[in-house]
Amino acid sequence: MSSAQKFKTLRGFRDFPPEDLALRSHLFERWRETARRYGFQEYDGPPLEGLELYTEKSGDEIVGQLYAFRDKGDRDVALRPEMTPSLARILADRSRALPKPIRWFSVPQLFRYERQQRGRLREHYQWNVDLVGEDSVDADAEVLAVALDSLRSLGLGADQVRARVSDRRLLAALLRSAGVADDRLVTAYTIIDKVEREPRERVAARLVEEAGVTPEVADRIVGIFDATGLDAVRESFGDDPEVAEALDRVRDFLGVMDDLGFGGFVEFDLAIVRGLAYYTGIVFEIFDRVGEFRAICGGGRYDRLLELVGGDPLPAVGFGMGDVVLSELLKDRGLAPTFSREVDWYVGAVTPAERPLARQLAGALRASGDSVVTPLRDQSVRRQLKSAASEGARRVMLVGPDEVARGIVQVRDMADGSETEVEIRSLLGDRAPGDAPGVVAAAGGSPA
Amino acid sequence: MSSAQKFKTLRGFRDFPPEDLALRSHLFERWRETARRYGFQEYDGPPLEGLELYTEKSGDEIVGQLYAFRDKGDRDVALRPEMTPSLARILADRSRALPKPIRWFSVPQLFRYERQQRGRLREHYQWNVDLVGEDSVDADAEVLAVALDSLRSLGLGADQVRARVSDRRLLAALLRSAGVADDRLVTAYTIIDKVEREPRERVAARLVEEAGVTPEVADRIVGIFDATGLDAVRESFGDDPEVAEALDRVRDFLGVMDDLGFGGFVEFDLAIVRGLAYYTGIVFEIFDRVGEFRAICGGGRYDRLLELVGGDPLPAVGFGMGDVVLSELLKDRGLAPTFSREVDWYVGAVTPAERPLARQLAGALRASGDSVVTPLRDQSVRRQLKSAASEGARRVMLVGPDEVARGIVQVRDMADGSETEVEIRSLLGDRAPGDAPGVVAAAGGSPA
Repeated sequence: MSSAQKFKTLRGFRDFPPEDLALRSHLFERWRETARRYGFQEYDGPPLEGLELYTEKSGDEIVGQLYAFRDKGDRDVALRPEMTPSLARILADRSRALPKPIRWFSVPQLFRYERQQRGRLREHYQWNVDLVGEDSVDADAEVLAVALDSLRSLGLGADQVRARVSDRRLLAALLRSAGVADDRLVTAYTIIDKVEREPRERVAARLVEEAGVTPEVADRIVGIFDATGLDAVRESFGDDPEVAEALDRVRDFLGVMDDLGFGGFVEFDLAIVRGLAYYTGIVFEIFDRVGEFRAICGGGRYDRLLELVGGDPLPAVGFGMGDVVLSELLKDRGLAPTFSREVDWYVGAVTPAERPLARQLAGALRASGDSVVTPLRDQSVRRQLKSAASEGARRVMLVGPDEVARGIVQVRDMADGSETEVEIRSLLGDRAPGDAPGVVAAAGGSPA
Repeated sequence: MSSAQKFKTLRGFRDFPPEDLALRSHLFERWRETARRYGFQEYDGPPLEGLELYTEKSGDEIVGQLYAFRDKGDRDVALRPEMTPSLARILADRSRALPKPIRWFSVPQLFRYERQQRGRLREHYQWNVDLVGEDSVDADAEVLAVALDSLRSLGLGADQVRARVSDRRLLAALLRSAGVADDRLVTAYTIIDKVEREPRERVAARLVEEAGVTPEVADRIVGIFDATGLDAVRESFGDDPEVAEALDRVRDFLGVMDDLGFGGFVEFDLAIVRGLAYYTGIVFEIFDRVGEFRAICGGGRYDRLLELVGGDPLPAVGFGMGDVVLSELLKDRGLAPTFSREVDWYVGAVTPAERPLARQLAGALRASGDSVVTPLRDQSVRRQLKSAASEGARRVMLVGPDEVARGIVQVRDMADGSETEVEIRSLLGDRAPGDAPGVVAAAGGSPA
């Protein structure tokens, strides 16, 4: 059809017709409800920010993919690529006045512009949860518990998803212990970030070339990732007091996760590094256990970011969970809600003479909080029943002349086909048929 | 504080810290809940569209204020200034497959770029409600009822707000009857749009100069707006069959509004024209009765728009209701919800030894759907009670060694100060203190 080709959705952007929006709303509701159970409050910022908010502090990958442009006032601006800089900016003005810790969350739409890869989106929604002003392991654990609890409430239990957790301080201590110089740590992180996707020899060779370590040290580092579990790492490297302290911290963290009821979800995994430069402590990513999908969620501790953006120096830990991978996973696992049209009532009329009364009944039912669809023109009973079915009406009321003469209407329950007679007066409340207009509104008051 | 000045919100954009987001969420909830009661389904489109979607069909005012730019791929794009073109674009592909009428709504953020007037925003949120595929007065009335019902559910009754309603077909018939040529009708609309803000003589003079009518006809037109009510118009102009038909339609519309319970909100008012060129039938605006604020809502029938955007020719009626004026009005009338921090529980520990149990209890309460805040480090009882107060905890549970020895915890109700003893076992369910981790999660299942 030529008409459909006239205007197109921009590449990388999504329309959300009702059947797609239903899944998005389902995620948003579970996210918000979970945040509420942990005492987090929702905030939001603008989708557009001054470009400099990102160019100075965000990681290279984010800056390279900024959806940036110059506005009509010659101002360099960008569609927000991540939420944390906006959070930091908003808190810079307010954090002093707020009781600590600050528990905030948001559900922003985020944007990036990159040469389009097949099917790669330029926007997504991302639940951002941050806990600011507390640097304890309890804070780390609470934030990860929020992420996992949301997945559990969506039907993804410990048998379906797992959180892989590491700690930048532990990794730094191990690398220092292995002989990596302080100024090569970030380079080493970048190389280790690939440890799962590249052969061990390649990782070792890059450590020698780029991180400036001897082949012996490189082998020792690569060996770290063969150590499975905290105990093995402690056995090999626990003599170093910095390593030992970092290991204690991870152990305490895992203990708190157990207490909170999420021990079964969590695995210690040194290979989790995370790309962003600003992490300073715990880092985690959540994956489906089968390993079919990209990470569902990623986060960690970033104790220096607020200060860099101009705020008070406050420790912080948080995560982002996007809608795209999670939606795919839920659909794949049969956990996406089936989309169906549903209303409480279809209220029609057997002949045009009953339509005013049908409208009054619809108005009264809506004022009481029910959802009601009515025909919007004279229609046959047959046509109305068809509409009632396509609207997914749970009950149908067709106001007919014989019943009206008796002061009643018949209500058909569409689930079991049963029919009940209901007094019109009881449905209209104080408003008798033919009464002055507006009485239902006045009597019914707010349906809230 | 110098830190606060480092990064700024872009001019015309708003941050929503929790106390502001609470009001926005309140509006969104009432909007969505009202739409649901009328059987409308939510959809959404992207915030960015190809520029041509607007330059061809939107009104001049909108095109002149487009927040438009060229992206990195040399594509002319715009942040959406209104939702209807996106709706039309989305429906162009789908409307044939959908049962009619189509009842859709959305809550988009919209954008405009204009030379900044003092305090003028460059973004706002706007509830868009559209009913597509039905051209009856019932459809017109249902859409206006949705708008008014949302205000009623926010606490704004017929004593606080009113809908001023006119009809483009009636106005056209009256102008033609008064002697205005067809090709001057739109010019005449623009002049009449100012009838409330300019002296009658000025309006009459402009009608002569710009709409090409004689001074006598101009006087006759201006006289139309002195006619108060349908009957007065019918008396003066009802002999014209086109006018009579349009008057009948408005009368029927008002009757349906009465039936639906909103008669008390609605006033016929020929001075309502609405700026946008695409309206073809009923037009309405909702105002506070005192007349202090700008319009809360505006809408009407636009039967040719879908076709212009490349879709099937379908009649449509809809409205937009923004968050800015409505928020101001609600605050002014004391109808904005008071923002307060609230959680069901604060669960702390008298000594560090009880903290693991306190965490387990918090986990169990959250798994049952309650909201719980816990201290995230060792803290004195005094400090914990202070946190419980600042978090707005309804109940406080401080797990203490003596109570634990007896297998109970004490729960203090913060509303009345009463204290109750609760068995720990009953709170933890299957999970006894010290049990293997994760059991609460398994036993509690989804808190949904």
